[in-house]
Amino acid sequence: MKEVKVGIIGFGTVGTGVASCLLENQSVMEKRTGVKIKLHKISDIDITTSRDIALPDGILTTDTDKLIDESDIVVELVGGIEVAKKIILTVLEKGKSVVTANKALLAEEGKEIFEVAEKYKADVYYEASVAGGIPIIKSLREGLAGNRIEKIMGILNGTCNYILTKMENDSQDFGEALNKASKLGYAEADPSLDIDGFDTAHKTAILASLAYGELISMDDIYIEGIRNIALMDINFAKDLGYRVKLMGIIKKEHNNIEVRVHPTMIPSATIMANISDVNNGVLIEGDPVGTTLFYGQGAGMKATSSAVVADIIDVALNIEKNSNRRIPAFRSAKQFNSLMSMKNIESRYYIRIQVSEKPGVIANISKILGDENISISSILQREKEASSEFVPIVIITHHTHEINMLKALDKMQNLTETKEKIKLIRIEDI
Amino acid sequence: MKEVKVGIIGFGTVGTGVASCLLENQSVMEKRTGVKIKLHKISDIDITTSRDIALPDGILTTDTDKLIDESDIVVELVGGIEVAKKIILTVLEKGKSVVTANKALLAEEGKEIFEVAEKYKADVYYEASVAGGIPIIKSLREGLAGNRIEKIMGILNGTCNYILTKMENDSQDFGEALNKASKLGYAEADPSLDIDGFDTAHKTAILASLAYGELISMDDIYIEGIRNIALMDINFAKDLGYRVKLMGIIKKEHNNIEVRVHPTMIPSATIMANISDVNNGVLIEGDPVGTTLFYGQGAGMKATSSAVVADIIDVALNIEKNSNRRIPAFRSAKQFNSLMSMKNIESRYYIRIQVSEKPGVIANISKILGDENISISSILQREKEASSEFVPIVIITHHTHEINMLKALDKMQNLTETKEKIKLIRIEDI
Repeated sequence: MKEVKVGIIGFGTVGTGVASCLLENQSVMEKRTGVKIKLHKISDIDITTSRDIALPDGILTTDTDKLIDESDIVVELVGGIEVAKKIILTVLEKGKSVVTANKALLAEEGKEIFEVAEKYKADVYYEASVAGGIPIIKSLREGLAGNRIEKIMGILNGTCNYILTKMENDSQDFGEALNKASKLGYAEADPSLDIDGFDTAHKTAILASLAYGELISMDDIYIEGIRNIALMDINFAKDLGYRVKLMGIIKKEHNNIEVRVHPTMIPSATIMANISDVNNGVLIEGDPVGTTLFYGQGAGMKATSSAVVADIIDVALNIEKNSNRRIPAFRSAKQFNSLMSMKNIESRYYIRIQVSEKPGVIANISKILGDENISISSILQREKEASSEFVPIVIITHHTHEINMLKALDKMQNLTETKEKIKLIRIEDI
Repeated sequence: MKEVKVGIIGFGTVGTGVASCLLENQSVMEKRTGVKIKLHKISDIDITTSRDIALPDGILTTDTDKLIDESDIVVELVGGIEVAKKIILTVLEKGKSVVTANKALLAEEGKEIFEVAEKYKADVYYEASVAGGIPIIKSLREGLAGNRIEKIMGILNGTCNYILTKMENDSQDFGEALNKASKLGYAEADPSLDIDGFDTAHKTAILASLAYGELISMDDIYIEGIRNIALMDINFAKDLGYRVKLMGIIKKEHNNIEVRVHPTMIPSATIMANISDVNNGVLIEGDPVGTTLFYGQGAGMKATSSAVVADIIDVALNIEKNSNRRIPAFRSAKQFNSLMSMKNIESRYYIRIQVSEKPGVIANISKILGDENISISSILQREKEASSEFVPIVIITHHTHEINMLKALDKMQNLTETKEKIKLIRIEDI
């Protein structure tokens, strides 16, 4: 039986999880695959801090070059862009395959990495880059490979989903829920990557690229995070039978695609709306498969290591069978006409306008919407609370073009009765 | 670019769906895989009845032998055991790979088929045999290949799930709901394979075999269908916060495994409980991945064809890369100690006892349960309805061994106050 040597670069949380899985499950993996997959070395700048894992002697090293030379498969878990990219290119140029969980790097520098991989006939596997332990990359490009993909919608960021769940369940405002997430280690010291939607956009870019055969750049994605979601909107959504989730949305309409990330109201009764806390979920709609949904832990040491190890096994089988590039990291083959700009998408909308109580306000608002050809699906005005200076008017629209909505929004914002910035949340009926 | 010829044997519903997908999505598949996958021939005894699909000339044939000789991949969609087995063995003996959706055949004759495939270095792919369009076989043995599997629970039969959903939502009894399912084409003329749990057991056997590296025989599985589920029990379950689902359950406990199929009460708030109508769902719990769940259409022409075509693509890539048996149909490598007999499993239980109203009934029942060391979690006795002769007493127990429960059940059944057969439904808290 062939022995395949695995070198891990980066001994952080995920690195520790991968090492632990390779050691603990080695015999199961060998039984399942017929290949002996051996943890050979782990490199890091810091190899003295305890990671609470018992490693065989001689595994830890600071010599990354030597690790690369000695390993059959290299796992990049350094994170960030510059150093990680340099490591990956070095490995690929030696004709060796790489496993990575680095979504930011792939979304931003994927083109160069995939080209170098092709040139040197090596593989780049990246299951762990999207949706943690859920085998969504494999499902999309192998399990559903016979489908025309019509839609992908995902809850892809555990931190945001935790915050939104907390806000709804415990009536906390955004700041409180973010604090709680930080205390539990779910949010970074600088939480912007998560809460401003960039992490979700990285993952959405990767899924869209795979689904439609062209690398989707971050610049092509509309990105809006959850920082401005108010508890009041979450409560109104709840009353109206919806939940607010940060979603990555990819759709094909008349052979054009749209790729966007924003807070989204989805019906409470759907499975997607019931994916709570730090969990992730991805819905894929394809022809002929119909609607499928994949659910699991989207982050964390253990779940992420499951995905990294699945990739290691794929590379090991490729080495064993001499079948590398059987499924290339990325195959460029555009399957759509153009990428729609945000103003051309169609959606239903939730808007909340804080107004001073005067006769004729609703007439003014309705007229503006009517002038832009936007029809109202429901409207809700509650009595003014004693504690509040203004009255919220909540409107749910039927489908309309984003550009019409933005025009109406602008006009409504300029009404003398309108106080504060109008809140807008897009609705998907799944 | 290599052209791979696909021959389909069996021009029924699924055969039509696969042909349609191969024709309509050929260009997408080619872009995604770099392989030209061509529908070469379809054979059937009946090639005159219209199937509502436009086929190129010369595709249809009654000459199955010639189809096998001319095709690179053969898709067996004949169904049943004898004829299908003969076809598959013929193909494998020629060193060609087979794609099949035939769960009954694999569950009952898998051993011989897998041995012949190994002998002739050919592949058998069978994604469509379990959970329709959901790529669950690929997820289990590739996407989660690094995991020790701790639990698999699945809603695997669309017909039963439809019937149970109807019973709960529309307050229909079992017979009414079954009639409705038949009218909609969800149930066969002889519905026994579905409603008596055999179809679920076939699929559960396949999942258990893959998860634990030993072929699990139908004789090793406890099988109980939904024929005896009363509307009253579904309503009691609902009041208690549960739903009744027919589930395939595979668990590992202290290195022993249990494999069973029976109606199961699961908490209404879980995602699994919200998988309704003809949809399927499979939960896999593994270490390190944690809990994952896969959802989609479990049957039907389109969803099933998605899975068959994914397998065709896998075989085509193996042909292109000369990597057949990269992931063998089945790798024997036992990963457990023994298969537990049903009497040794542990569960929580729902029991409903119809009694004549006499003082001391509950005392008698409680004493019997206490004598068998079974503790009661909750008990419910409603007032006798005017229309009814007897009073239902509903008891939910804490965890106990099945053998104790059966002993208690026997004693309770023999109480003079007990009328009708006591109903028992196992509870899983997921």
